[in-house]
Amino acid sequence: MHHPAASRDSVAQAISSILARLRDHGPRVHCITNAVAQNFTANVLLAIGCVPSMTLSPEEIGPFVAGAQALLVNLGTFDAERREATMIAVQMAVRHGLPWVLDPVFVDRAAPRAAFARELISRRPTVVRLNHAEFSALVGNEPSSAEAMTYARKCGIVLGLSGKTDLVTDGVRIASIDNGHPLMAKVTAMGCASSALVAACLATDLDVVRATIAALVIVGVAGEIAAEKSNGPGSFATAIIDSLYGLDGPKLAGRVKVS
Amino acid sequence: MHHPAASRDSVAQAISSILARLRDHGPRVHCITNAVAQNFTANVLLAIGCVPSMTLSPEEIGPFVAGAQALLVNLGTFDAERREATMIAVQMAVRHGLPWVLDPVFVDRAAPRAAFARELISRRPTVVRLNHAEFSALVGNEPSSAEAMTYARKCGIVLGLSGKTDLVTDGVRIASIDNGHPLMAKVTAMGCASSALVAACLATDLDVVRATIAALVIVGVAGEIAAEKSNGPGSFATAIIDSLYGLDGPKLAGRVKVS
Amino acid sequence: MHHPAASRDSVAQAISSILARLRDHGPRVHCITNAVAQNFTANVLLAIGCVPSMTLSPEEIGPFVAGAQALLVNLGTFDAERREATMIAVQMAVRHGLPWVLDPVFVDRAAPRAAFARELISRRPTVVRLNHAEFSALVGNEPSSAEAMTYARKCGIVLGLSGKTDLVTDGVRIASIDNGHPLMAKVTAMGCASSALVAACLATDLDVVRATIAALVIVGVAGEIAAEKSNGPGSFATAIIDSLYGLDGPKLAGRVKVS
Repeated sequence: MHHPAASRDSVAQAISSILARLRDHGPRVHCITNAVAQNFTANVLLAIGCVPSMTLSPEEIGPFVAGAQALLVNLGTFDAERREATMIAVQMAVRHGLPWVLDPVFVDRAAPRAAFARELISRRPTVVRLNHAEFSALVGNEPSSAEAMTYARKCGIVLGLSGKTDLVTDGVRIASIDNGHPLMAKVTAMGCASSALVAACLATDLDVVRATIAALVIVGVAGEIAAEKSNGPGSFATAIIDSLYGLDGPKLAGRVKVS
Repeated sequence: MHHPAASRDSVAQAISSILARLRDHGPRVHCITNAVAQNFTANVLLAIGCVPSMTLSPEEIGPFVAGAQALLVNLGTFDAERREATMIAVQMAVRHGLPWVLDPVFVDRAAPRAAFARELISRRPTVVRLNHAEFSALVGNEPSSAEAMTYARKCGIVLGLSGKTDLVTDGVRIASIDNGHPLMAKVTAMGCASSALVAACLATDLDVVRATIAALVIVGVAGEIAAEKSNGPGSFATAIIDSLYGLDGPKLAGRVKVS
Repeated sequence: MHHPAASRDSVAQAISSILARLRDHGPRVHCITNAVAQNFTANVLLAIGCVPSMTLSPEEIGPFVAGAQALLVNLGTFDAERREATMIAVQMAVRHGLPWVLDPVFVDRAAPRAAFARELISRRPTVVRLNHAEFSALVGNEPSSAEAMTYARKCGIVLGLSGKTDLVTDGVRIASIDNGHPLMAKVTAMGCASSALVAACLATDLDVVRATIAALVIVGVAGEIAAEKSNGPGSFATAIIDSLYGLDGPKLAGRVKVS
């Protein structure tokens, strides 16, 4: 990416166009996510125009994924049921050529979870979205642009590394995103919902890097707008749903910070 | 129903009286519902004056249902635990003569779920509340007033069919309800919570059609009031809890749209 | 406690100091809690400065608890998975000398749940926090100051008994707290989240009675502030997260009602 000032408009336009397609096509996004995040994630997806589904039952997750346009696998609740559901869902996504996103929540906290995440990464998720602690736990090194690019290239994935500045890389290109607001870290499931938005955007654009950037900018800008109307993380969590719902090209335009 | 203008006041009055009984008696409503919907459903029931419970454990769901005044079975998370809980809970409801509501969420998406819903409908829930896609999946025909009446009669149930206009029928009588607001479709679990309100109203009135109408009008009017104070689905989800809590006969009176 | 007027300032100061330590140290609190309460509990803990985790998987709950500074065990969803997780987590807490809180939700509704709660109490949780109906179900007598003290002494625990007035006792000392607002009873999981706050405060203060009082005052005062800005339980649930986030010594000072 490394956009010269002149290309900033075209980045904003690409993101606006992905947003417009979300509204127009309303992709179905199937989410295997933790119980803490399910409700908020569903509301984020509805607000942006998608149709979320969340079932975990081994008997029926296959048809649900087959009927979806993207899949999210979030490890926030790492139980036997979700592990089984994940294996079926990932197989189905691969068979149908669906984009899928892995969010390896809290792999820094417990070894079995990190092992399961590595096993999933070997199946080449379209995007892996994680924070610095999770990156370090998986990769063994502190995150940096160079480390992120190397890891993305090695695994054959696009990496979305969230932090004060978000990085998105496929191992060749790299972009950094400076949208967002500190209150986002004070609302549970905000990262999980962002990963669901990445899955949603992948359903609308074959350029994985561009779709991932779009998702992170969309949620970041929505967070900036929400923060202006909030008194704390409670009202912020409500306001960000409203601002995702009301977001459009003109509102995005002045705020996109991708370089 | 087919109410002439003159009887509109009496419909509003019947609904107000059900609302007043909810506040006065605070019925216990046991809910087998999906993880996405549990928190919002509990808050909707609390706001209207009920006492929700949500346990799924096979060991104790029996006593919980036996101590409740109504039961909700929502298929939104169709897992082994909920299926087992459902069979015990339904048996207990039947044995104690408790009203119970079936919400066959997403039966249009997976065959095992539709089969389980049909099996439950053969046990004659008091009310089945579903949307158009779910109706078509179960019945095999597009929904219409005539189809809805035929299906309700055939199954010996009251049907609550939600859509732009809601229909309620026992196969003989039919009423249509035009309350509600489009934002209700942008909040996850709104339909699930509406079904829980149907269960709550059944606990206060032996006329199943009337109680079902009351529930759908109550949530619809609360939605209309909430929409006037909202900036999007986030603030709407908060505001509808407030307006359910503040709803009373006078606020209902001018807004009831049943015909 | 039985504080003379002169010592009220010092109580407020002790609570402010616990609040400041929550903000500064951000203790990790692992919560085994019911699906209805998980999201709200996580947001309450984040708002006050803690780092919540919620996993239930038997394989990894051990490391999560070992890495936490306090543990909450809430019986609101009494399923096999949570029972197994609880036994592992409690063993780990005991081994590492971590404070842990038991919230025996709804033990008045089903005998197996009460039996499990008694078994857990025999392992001496640091604090047991319950309401009047739950106390009666466990103890067999109506709650009173004398009964509460006797039970706390007999079990070797600190008891937090919530009601219009909250009581906190270790069997020797007893304090009563008159903070809070009736809307708190109209929001699901408010009690569960309060118990999580007790766990959080235990991580910052070795005086268990004082930490428990602090937690109940903090949530009660936040509730009072939130009620002034609310139109019902929906906006209240949002506002209490905001007021927990914004709470500080000066805001607490004039409002602490401990005697």
